[in-house]
Amino acid sequence: MKMTQEILDRLNNNSLYNSLGITIEEANMGKARSRLEPNADLCWPFPGQPHGGILFTQMDTTLSWAICTLLDSGQSCTTINLDIQFTSRAQADRIICSAWATHQTKRMSFGRAEIHDLEGNIMAMGQGSFRIIKGDLF
Amino acid sequence: MKMTQEILDRLNNNSLYNSLGITIEEANMGKARSRLEPNADLCWPFPGQPHGGILFTQMDTTLSWAICTLLDSGQSCTTINLDIQFTSRAQADRIICSAWATHQTKRMSFGRAEIHDLEGNIMAMGQGSFRIIKGDLF
Amino acid sequence: MKMTQEILDRLNNNSLYNSLGITIEEANMGKARSRLEPNADLCWPFPGQPHGGILFTQMDTTLSWAICTLLDSGQSCTTINLDIQFTSRAQADRIICSAWATHQTKRMSFGRAEIHDLEGNIMAMGQGSFRIIKGDLF
Amino acid sequence: MKMTQEILDRLNNNSLYNSLGITIEEANMGKARSRLEPNADLCWPFPGQPHGGILFTQMDTTLSWAICTLLDSGQSCTTINLDIQFTSRAQADRIICSAWATHQTKRMSFGRAEIHDLEGNIMAMGQGSFRIIKGDLF
Repeated sequence: MKMTQEILDRLNNNSLYNSLGITIEEANMGKARSRLEPNADLCWPFPGQPHGGILFTQMDTTLSWAICTLLDSGQSCTTINLDIQFTSRAQADRIICSAWATHQTKRMSFGRAEIHDLEGNIMAMGQGSFRIIKGDLF
Repeated sequence: MKMTQEILDRLNNNSLYNSLGITIEEANMGKARSRLEPNADLCWPFPGQPHGGILFTQMDTTLSWAICTLLDSGQSCTTINLDIQFTSRAQADRIICSAWATHQTKRMSFGRAEIHDLEGNIMAMGQGSFRIIKGDLF
Repeated sequence: MKMTQEILDRLNNNSLYNSLGITIEEANMGKARSRLEPNADLCWPFPGQPHGGILFTQMDTTLSWAICTLLDSGQSCTTINLDIQFTSRAQADRIICSAWATHQTKRMSFGRAEIHDLEGNIMAMGQGSFRIIKGDLF
Repeated sequence: MKMTQEILDRLNNNSLYNSLGITIEEANMGKARSRLEPNADLCWPFPGQPHGGILFTQMDTTLSWAICTLLDSGQSCTTINLDIQFTSRAQADRIICSAWATHQTKRMSFGRAEIHDLEGNIMAMGQGSFRIIKGDLF
């Protein structure tokens, strides 16, 4: 499934993304990329640094988009598990997540993701497994 | 370090917890317990069900409290990695996280947590490793 | 499915367990317990300490038994993912793994395990997700 | 630290690798590659398919080599945690693990790895965190 800009615009306009500052920038052929413009309220306990859970949310949702681009229409996915490593402090005005599907079976998908700043410095890395479900987010 | 109700009240009143609906209910002797009263804006894409990243945030921060109760004053901790499994749909008005420290070395701590409803039905499970750092959150 | 001593004896007598020194001691009602009597050849690079991969093998296989006790006959399970933490050095003549199923859906199971010595000192902890498949190991 | 063929030959000749059928083929500049020629005794319960724990052992040790190539002499590393996903059946005469360090701090390293056949079909993926310790394996 190809995510046109029209679909992206429509889906980006949801209450979760608006609250957290997440925007999916592109999603196509098993890959997705998002940006996080951190909401100051969610930068706690360290000012200027979104809580790790906000980074996890960005990673999890970006991975879902990457995986969904490979599914049939009428299918969606739900996270089974996601392991995230926090490798360095996430202090940036714009935080990028790059995610990609790595393997797919009939009922499951696997994916990996990295969170980094605009210079490519890695702040977090993750890998997860996802269950393919009926549903149509798009 | 014992977390008195006065410390809990003061620390619970932060912008992250207020935005997400998290309250630490107790933290003592390597254990902590929190509740999440989900903010409807963060229940996306499934109405009435907080995004997995919100559950991760609750788990990660509750684990940190559990671990911090065992540290010296002037010490705090930061997450190295956290693996979370989503075992069933988190649809409840009040979501509980129970977290406990499992092992501690000079520079690291390990912990586990469960997220469940008031009847004890498990919704998510996690285990993580944490680095002990200088700092004084309390 | 209840694992009688006769089933345990028959299944314990396999080439993998014999090579590594693994014995399943009991498996019943979602729980299993095994012991590892480390083969000296597999204690590398640290003498007297089985490689982490040998502990992982013990944990993975013990978890499978715990999960299989809850499945119907004609069903077995296969590991989707397993996250293992090594919390302290595994230097003991007899290493115990305690594993338990934590949640089961129609197609998946989840479980946790601990590896410890006879005094209960934790050496490793893990949590995993498993896919239920057709098969009959027993 | 550069791993010359002389160092590789000497280190590959250890009891663990010989028992399991592991050979490190190269290790340099934060990357390492190994092959596993599965020992039939360790292919249980599925004939021709090494147990997942043997794949984990190959992954964990190959990651350690990748990380050690970036450390100072007199330093080594030990696994904190490693999350492994089994994406498809590992049935091949020769199983390759490619591992790379992804990030390093003063006291920790992070890395990722893939296990695949000679055609590049992925069988397992992992990511781990490692503690830098004093030691000199080489």
